[in-house]
Amino acid sequence: MKSDRRKDAAAAVVLLSGGLDSATAAAWARDRGYRLSALSIDYGQRHRCELDSARAVAASLGITDHITMAVDLAAFGGSALVDTSVAVPKGRSHDEIGQGVPVTYVPARNTVFLALSLAMAETRGAEALVIGVNTIDYSGYPDCRPEFIDAFATLARLATQAGVEGRPLEVLAPLATLSKPEIIRLGLALGLDYGLTTSCYDPDARGRPCGACDSCLLRAAGFAAAGAVDPRAAAV
Amino acid sequence: MKSDRRKDAAAAVVLLSGGLDSATAAAWARDRGYRLSALSIDYGQRHRCELDSARAVAASLGITDHITMAVDLAAFGGSALVDTSVAVPKGRSHDEIGQGVPVTYVPARNTVFLALSLAMAETRGAEALVIGVNTIDYSGYPDCRPEFIDAFATLARLATQAGVEGRPLEVLAPLATLSKPEIIRLGLALGLDYGLTTSCYDPDARGRPCGACDSCLLRAAGFAAAGAVDPRAAAV
Repeated sequence: MKSDRRKDAAAAVVLLSGGLDSATAAAWARDRGYRLSALSIDYGQRHRCELDSARAVAASLGITDHITMAVDLAAFGGSALVDTSVAVPKGRSHDEIGQGVPVTYVPARNTVFLALSLAMAETRGAEALVIGVNTIDYSGYPDCRPEFIDAFATLARLATQAGVEGRPLEVLAPLATLSKPEIIRLGLALGLDYGLTTSCYDPDARGRPCGACDSCLLRAAGFAAAGAVDPRAAAV
Repeated sequence: MKSDRRKDAAAAVVLLSGGLDSATAAAWARDRGYRLSALSIDYGQRHRCELDSARAVAASLGITDHITMAVDLAAFGGSALVDTSVAVPKGRSHDEIGQGVPVTYVPARNTVFLALSLAMAETRGAEALVIGVNTIDYSGYPDCRPEFIDAFATLARLATQAGVEGRPLEVLAPLATLSKPEIIRLGLALGLDYGLTTSCYDPDARGRPCGACDSCLLRAAGFAAAGAVDPRAAAV
């Protein structure tokens, strides 16, 4: 990865949720030499404590241009992640996770997040958006798939002044084809402190992970397969 | 237009700014038989009084499912419409308007708005998004062009559960190829009260239009060419 380092300091905006994947994507982009701005979204998620994690991750990566923007997707309803009347599924098997679209899907979430990161990118003159989606060990959301990312990249070039003027604008999804253990090994190789990240969809009032939602289960399986200890789990 | 009326009551989400174009697009969609929900965005625009107009237009069209969502695009800066330190251009000729991207362009605004309308559409089971963009008498924004709308339609189908399940999801831009006078004649034929709408980028504290910004000039020229009186102008 070092040999791939950019010589110029092109700007990029990274979507930072506070979770494992987006933190790894940010560490990857920093290693690639991008000058990073970060965007986190307070969308009414029940696991809003992840925004504290996002701030900690941004600080650990030296990102000073970090905006946390409020967008009340809960006003639309329709997801267990923003609607406390809908239960978060627990204890599903690895085969069940990723089959069909689960109730934790937040309608059009990544479209909204990428759109906002595009707005931020235009004001920063950024050449890239960075998003930590992946489709190997994932929750079965349609807006994580490579074809979705490609369609957004096409849209981004048509939507913006940068695109009109022919300036580059890429959408980078460096984790797209990585398994969860591969993501974790990448992050550890880049010196990322996963103890700063949080992944749980349904943490308790003190932010401690439930250990049973899809996201907790994927994370635990990933650390086990990577032969690594999750510092977040160890700290609880 | 009546012969084209839909027999079923498919749901649609219309982006309603409070301006002339989006009100006409909403009236068109209602005439087509869509069951309408409306979404307005408080994005920090200096002409926030348009949100009152959006409420009045929604009420006049019998739209009860109307959400006004706050998204602080001003936090990113970079546009005269959200940054009061950047002056709104005044008194430009019709030839100047539409040449290049003006300072009133809000980075990625329509991408953000369409993304939010997509989230609302998913929770409503809507089959269409309706947006009042047009590219004949417009302000030169890249995210008003037909190729942008087409790219968003492609994205929308990839981004959503509706798309995964093969349910229809269209992006309708009924004004795309209409001139401003044609838009105004369409709205008048549909019984739309343009006195409820507001178009000015830089109104005074009482919401009265400046009469000199690109949007005011396009509106005045449109009414003149349509041979109609602007009830909004007459009321001031």
